[in-house]
Amino acid sequence: MKIRRSGRLVDMTRYLLDHPHHLISLTIFAERYKSAKSSISEDLDIVSEMLEHEGTGRLVTVPGAAGGVMFIPTWSSEKALPFIDDLCERVARPDRLLPGGYLYLTDLLGNPRMVKQMGQVFASVFSQKKVDVVMTIATKGIPLAYAVAEQLGVPFVIVRSDSRVTEGSTVSINYVSGSSKAIRTMALARRSLPRGANVLLIDDFMKAGGTIRGMMSLLSEFEAKVAGVGVLIEAEGAEKKMVSEYVSLMKLADVDVDLGQIQVKRGNVDQYFTSDGNT
Amino acid sequence: MKIRRSGRLVDMTRYLLDHPHHLISLTIFAERYKSAKSSISEDLDIVSEMLEHEGTGRLVTVPGAAGGVMFIPTWSSEKALPFIDDLCERVARPDRLLPGGYLYLTDLLGNPRMVKQMGQVFASVFSQKKVDVVMTIATKGIPLAYAVAEQLGVPFVIVRSDSRVTEGSTVSINYVSGSSKAIRTMALARRSLPRGANVLLIDDFMKAGGTIRGMMSLLSEFEAKVAGVGVLIEAEGAEKKMVSEYVSLMKLADVDVDLGQIQVKRGNVDQYFTSDGNT
Repeated sequence: MKIRRSGRLVDMTRYLLDHPHHLISLTIFAERYKSAKSSISEDLDIVSEMLEHEGTGRLVTVPGAAGGVMFIPTWSSEKALPFIDDLCERVARPDRLLPGGYLYLTDLLGNPRMVKQMGQVFASVFSQKKVDVVMTIATKGIPLAYAVAEQLGVPFVIVRSDSRVTEGSTVSINYVSGSSKAIRTMALARRSLPRGANVLLIDDFMKAGGTIRGMMSLLSEFEAKVAGVGVLIEAEGAEKKMVSEYVSLMKLADVDVDLGQIQVKRGNVDQYFTSDGNT
Repeated sequence: MKIRRSGRLVDMTRYLLDHPHHLISLTIFAERYKSAKSSISEDLDIVSEMLEHEGTGRLVTVPGAAGGVMFIPTWSSEKALPFIDDLCERVARPDRLLPGGYLYLTDLLGNPRMVKQMGQVFASVFSQKKVDVVMTIATKGIPLAYAVAEQLGVPFVIVRSDSRVTEGSTVSINYVSGSSKAIRTMALARRSLPRGANVLLIDDFMKAGGTIRGMMSLLSEFEAKVAGVGVLIEAEGAEKKMVSEYVSLMKLADVDVDLGQIQVKRGNVDQYFTSDGNT
């Protein structure tokens, strides 16, 4: 059945959003809709214009026989910065404060729409990097890592901090927690990471950075490379960070348990979003 | 800026796919695109027709002043059954077999596109149930629970099997693992589940069902109700199941460690997909 332009636009949008960072040959669309490639090209121009207008991403066209079109999720500054400011406000609510100065974030990290948008912001920041795999450590960062991986069109792997791993042989390392100076263990299934992979590390929280450093040591055991580091919240503190390069969406400036006050501001992510509206 | 039909169709598709199970007032679209509601209605007819044609979902229109349109992800049988059969084939590959008869599933559960599609199948099955929250237990089922929650437009919560919980006061219970008869503990943050919530339980693997039963006991501590149970793979075995009603995508019929053979067939999910192509 030949499909008209209006129908093609609906289905093409769905298909492209479902396959971020994947090169899709125009032939696939031409056969799918029984339409000429010239019509498909015109459709793609409309989709591209609308995605850029909404600030959610762009289409990249690769010419030639092996070419095609690729959807790259990239948020504009007009979309990203208000989202991050809204996140900061939500995190700063005093009722999040838990004994020991911890923050209750379960509601945010358990809200698929919020997590997906965090993933879209990270995917925007790392869209130019070569990323083969996203890696996180259990438990709370898993949904975020999933969302980032989905938007980058790559798989994700989960490092475990316990030994109850039923994934075959594992590689494990000891590492020093940066803030408590305790020695901990992390483990990853040997099969889950190909040698030489470019790995984006994602975590929900970074204090001194000991956990991220641990994941970096683990990567070197796999002869894999660090493609980048992204954390949802970094704690601004006196401790020297054990990780020099990272992108944070939020920065926890101050937590006053006695007064019940939490100060949260934009993380260093805002340097990736300029005032002209582009990443 | 007034936006033409072709642009509206692209953006509307993106918006609807991003907000499953949410009632969206036509006024929102009319203001967003500076267009008459009659034009918006015509656009929605085109989107609806195309989604049903592709078997990925349908639009439900609620008439009246408080009405609007809702996207319900519901896969057709023509889409769901081949996907499940493909999953079965992937799981049956002999190189998944690990010592102790465990299966290596990290690649499948770490592939966002596969996991999203599993989520879409479960969301199709449970689309008519009243679900307020999706619940899973750490660690491997988390991405699947996220995907199901995303497609149902609800939050998800993660039950922990360790005590390193930094989420404030928790409710914990002891339960008996159905297969090993060992006593285990699971815990959930008190704040994370509202009283009386309708909860869909999701897990990656079910043998005798002890873990699911444990989650049910935990729910009763929260005076919450079981809206349904979904597992990716159930093990077919001699043990009596401790859970009577559940939906499984796959059934592990036989694992022969010596011969290196794994037999996997469709789970009971196939009764939800009939041959006329509708759920």
